[in-house]
Amino acid sequence: MSSPDTFLARRICQGAESRMSFPTNLLQALKLDREEGTKQIFEVLRNLSFDGVGVSRETYGHGETKAIDFIASLAVASGLSCFADPAGNMILECPGLDTSLPFVATGSHLDSVPQGGNYDGSAGVVAGLLTLLDAQQQNLSRTLRTYILRGEESAWFGGPCYFGSRAMFGQLTDHDLESMHRSQKRPLRAQMESCGIQVDAMMEQAPWAESHQFAAWVELHIEQGPVLVQKKKPIGIVTGIRGNVRHRKAVITGEAGHSGAVPRWLRHDAVLAMAELMHRMDGHWKTLLEQGEDLVLTFGIVETDAKEHAVSRIPGMVSFSIEYRSQDETTLKLFGNLLAEEAEDISQKRKLSIDLGDVSQTKAAIMDPKLVALAQQTASDQQVDFEIMASGAGHDTAVFANQNIPSTMLFVRNENGSHNPHEAMDIKDFLAASHILSKMLCQLAL
Amino acid sequence: MSSPDTFLARRICQGAESRMSFPTNLLQALKLDREEGTKQIFEVLRNLSFDGVGVSRETYGHGETKAIDFIASLAVASGLSCFADPAGNMILECPGLDTSLPFVATGSHLDSVPQGGNYDGSAGVVAGLLTLLDAQQQNLSRTLRTYILRGEESAWFGGPCYFGSRAMFGQLTDHDLESMHRSQKRPLRAQMESCGIQVDAMMEQAPWAESHQFAAWVELHIEQGPVLVQKKKPIGIVTGIRGNVRHRKAVITGEAGHSGAVPRWLRHDAVLAMAELMHRMDGHWKTLLEQGEDLVLTFGIVETDAKEHAVSRIPGMVSFSIEYRSQDETTLKLFGNLLAEEAEDISQKRKLSIDLGDVSQTKAAIMDPKLVALAQQTASDQQVDFEIMASGAGHDTAVFANQNIPSTMLFVRNENGSHNPHEAMDIKDFLAASHILSKMLCQLAL
Repeated sequence: MSSPDTFLARRICQGAESRMSFPTNLLQALKLDREEGTKQIFEVLRNLSFDGVGVSRETYGHGETKAIDFIASLAVASGLSCFADPAGNMILECPGLDTSLPFVATGSHLDSVPQGGNYDGSAGVVAGLLTLLDAQQQNLSRTLRTYILRGEESAWFGGPCYFGSRAMFGQLTDHDLESMHRSQKRPLRAQMESCGIQVDAMMEQAPWAESHQFAAWVELHIEQGPVLVQKKKPIGIVTGIRGNVRHRKAVITGEAGHSGAVPRWLRHDAVLAMAELMHRMDGHWKTLLEQGEDLVLTFGIVETDAKEHAVSRIPGMVSFSIEYRSQDETTLKLFGNLLAEEAEDISQKRKLSIDLGDVSQTKAAIMDPKLVALAQQTASDQQVDFEIMASGAGHDTAVFANQNIPSTMLFVRNENGSHNPHEAMDIKDFLAASHILSKMLCQLAL
Repeated sequence: MSSPDTFLARRICQGAESRMSFPTNLLQALKLDREEGTKQIFEVLRNLSFDGVGVSRETYGHGETKAIDFIASLAVASGLSCFADPAGNMILECPGLDTSLPFVATGSHLDSVPQGGNYDGSAGVVAGLLTLLDAQQQNLSRTLRTYILRGEESAWFGGPCYFGSRAMFGQLTDHDLESMHRSQKRPLRAQMESCGIQVDAMMEQAPWAESHQFAAWVELHIEQGPVLVQKKKPIGIVTGIRGNVRHRKAVITGEAGHSGAVPRWLRHDAVLAMAELMHRMDGHWKTLLEQGEDLVLTFGIVETDAKEHAVSRIPGMVSFSIEYRSQDETTLKLFGNLLAEEAEDISQKRKLSIDLGDVSQTKAAIMDPKLVALAQQTASDQQVDFEIMASGAGHDTAVFANQNIPSTMLFVRNENGSHNPHEAMDIKDFLAASHILSKMLCQLAL
């Protein structure tokens, strides 16, 4: 079995020659003008992975590897330690004076969705690199680490995600390894092997990370929603990552019939039943928000049966997706009960069947209150306006938090959402957030 | 230009030989046992047009022509007059003593939807034949006519229908003639010509029917809904034919977004807006019924955009159909106003756009109160239990009624709806209704 370091050494050497010109110029630019240097780093990342529309850095694919190699080359050229773990996560390290102390960690991912944006994931990695460069100037007690985690996006292997971080803690399953690629028809296992991962050895070695090794975990990420733009605040401090409950295909089965010839009292209209269910749940959502709960609700897909439906036919069937998210597991459970009760009530009232279908769940993660407070204090000290908020999207940070590692996240204002080429993060907002990250981690590592 | 009769003569002669055996046996069977004879007639119709699943008698197609030829051959063999009009409608006639008087008419159609049932249309034609056979035994003042109207179904030419009856009254347009066949890519004009119709001559000659020629019109038809089965009544007496208003594709355009990252107050969710609109209109429908109005409401087609939608994406767009029907034009107008108001209110409240799209309308038709009363009286005399009801489906009768010809319809109890091979009309119910039709028309022709 190869040691983690062997994997890195091989990769760093393979790519070294072609990258030699980047680091020197870029590190020089960073030193002279951090804003200009940072812009250039993001520009290189974009050029490395531009697909004609957006950037594509496939999970355990060539684009992700190239991006990791590039950041690692910058780290090595800066004199930071750099090594890969058995899952191919790349770890940049600034050793502390006392390496026996738990280390302070940050990080994010470098894979993207197909035709995605340049900042989702990479912002946190670049901020982690900048933080380690800052830390190099100080004599910190604790080691600082930046993790470049592989395979965060769910877009490539049909849903499962956080492969790199979950592997660290022994959470990767054979089922994950069998997940099929969205187009290439090869499973994750083969995809990982194509990156040089020795999958069986990795599974044997897991878990190789333990929560007591981590003093804290803070991830910087662009906001994927519009809250910071709307509130005109450059950064967000995250109190929790919403868990979600998903019904991919709920089905209401009523009775089809002639739209003119069946009176109301004899109808079992699937679409009107769905409309009533949605409208009632919309009402419950509103009420729960008014009561101060955290919740979002989405019926993203709705379809009557194209083989059967017609303008003049009472719809006998309709299918739809249901997804709701909350930072609070109790709220998720409460809302799930309300959903089941309303479905039951409507199915009885309208004499039809409502099958909510298979359900999948992702656990919510609560951020560490002390870290949240430290983030607030640090932002205030820097006179940077912030919003306290939940993360609606999932992140690797949830994996760390659910290992009882004290965790939080910093969001950077970003227009036009994420997962599209129109992500628009102002470099000044990024630098403000990155500076707060750096201040926080260095303080934690004192 | 050929006269109407030329068309008939040609067709009757062409098919005569092959049909000679039918009429003699069947007419004999009818005389000995009307129930048995009627069963055999329906059986022949089914066998003539069975397609492996149901019956297919295409509008101005081969199956419709064969069925018309068969019924015409029975009429001719019974000594009834029989001739076709310029649109190919076949008219069976029992002349009255005073042919200067307006005649009393019944009839229906012999085309079917693809893979349809055997009774939709044909029941009224067979009842019309039986009525004329009854009339032959009496010395009636007025002429009795049974119209076998061509092209009633909307299934074959993309929506337009009632071609035969509308042609009679000069309502057929060039636009109708250009309607394309659902699969064969030929327009109605070519389809009609393939049946020997001289289309230009027909259009020139129209209208060849005038309302003052008709003393009354009564159509017998199977019920296409479940009311008579549910109410355990063999026949229905129709007070009106519902008009309808159709929005084939209403579109709500909101704003797509990450299902986790956008809070409620920043959402413009197209599906929740649709659910609210449907639910409100469902409520208005209920209220109007409670106020004694006639109304049915159907959202038959609902679709989010398959290229865009996802479980974890706020739906930015949804399209759906809207159809509502009523016997009462005032109710249609009122409901249309409510729909527009609610759409406007919801679009303002949710800050999104609701486009109800193109609208098409079919006029409602009110049945003649005197004929409705006569039907009730006749049914009571025969001790046949009946239901007073609206026709939710459209019928050629609406064309006659809207020409100010006093009209009504008799419905026959029928299980499993229409337009499918599972139509189930009990022959005893049919004979009861047919007997009432015969009694009514003979009385009107006295």
